[in-house]
Amino acid sequence: MANKTVVIAEPNKQELFITREFDVPRELVFNAHVDPDQYVQWVGPNDLEMSIQKLDARDGGTFEFTHTRGGHSYRFFGSYHEVLKNERIIGTFEFDGLPERGHVILGKTTFEELPNGRSRLVHQSVFMSVADRDGMVQSGMERGVREGYEKLDKLFAQMQEPNTASA
Amino acid sequence: MANKTVVIAEPNKQELFITREFDVPRELVFNAHVDPDQYVQWVGPNDLEMSIQKLDARDGGTFEFTHTRGGHSYRFFGSYHEVLKNERIIGTFEFDGLPERGHVILGKTTFEELPNGRSRLVHQSVFMSVADRDGMVQSGMERGVREGYEKLDKLFAQMQEPNTASA
Repeated sequence: MANKTVVIAEPNKQELFITREFDVPRELVFNAHVDPDQYVQWVGPNDLEMSIQKLDARDGGTFEFTHTRGGHSYRFFGSYHEVLKNERIIGTFEFDGLPERGHVILGKTTFEELPNGRSRLVHQSVFMSVADRDGMVQSGMERGVREGYEKLDKLFAQMQEPNTASA
Repeated sequence: MANKTVVIAEPNKQELFITREFDVPRELVFNAHVDPDQYVQWVGPNDLEMSIQKLDARDGGTFEFTHTRGGHSYRFFGSYHEVLKNERIIGTFEFDGLPERGHVILGKTTFEELPNGRSRLVHQSVFMSVADRDGMVQSGMERGVREGYEKLDKLFAQMQEPNTASA
């Protein structure tokens, strides 16, 4: 049975939580978040083209990536507060396509071990207002997150296939 | 009449707001936040000794400073998401003396012009939980903030005095 992406956004709160299990150990899920070569292959919805300008995933590093669709570009950027190997990533996140700058999100992604070589990702996004949070939810974020993790499942499946090129 | 520091923390919210007016233009208040030589002179309560390990106040920069009292040290650190000259500073903030790491705060400080060469600072702190917010309020943060801004008032007064050494 496929793993489900669960997004919880309680009414009148300025935060949301995303939970997703993976059929691989947390080390692989963590690596897919900090390795630009992997990150570019899975983040975002299916109908957007992803490009990474910078992904320096370490304490005090920064990132910047762009989603492109039909000639329109959507830029996302932020700073890493803490990148704790295989355990958690904490940082800021901003979409520069909003009507004004300064609506920043604090994100915390935690990677948990599960039995049988599986793992669980728990992400918390904290917003500067309930309106910012609701705007993000209404933007179709949930589909983008779900499709991204489905791409990540496929990436993990490819990594586990025997390398036919070297056979 | 002295300017008052107003801290507003509504019940059951994971944020707080600090408002403070200053009798100087916002450029001076902004500079006092990004210049380490000034920052070290005013941040924190009166009974702590302040030292700065790093204050690289620019987009993607980081900071680290330490408060010391009676042989105990309290370290604070974070990342700058955005430093927009004279207007706002957005970044993360963490106190490493908590029982566990990972309780990070998203802070946004806005510098507003007021008539007659005065200005208003508005700071929003957004926490990962209501409990984190309440813990910060109960730690005596308000006194530290108030005393810090009082030191900053004195620093501005000193800067406006004629330099007797060169007289």
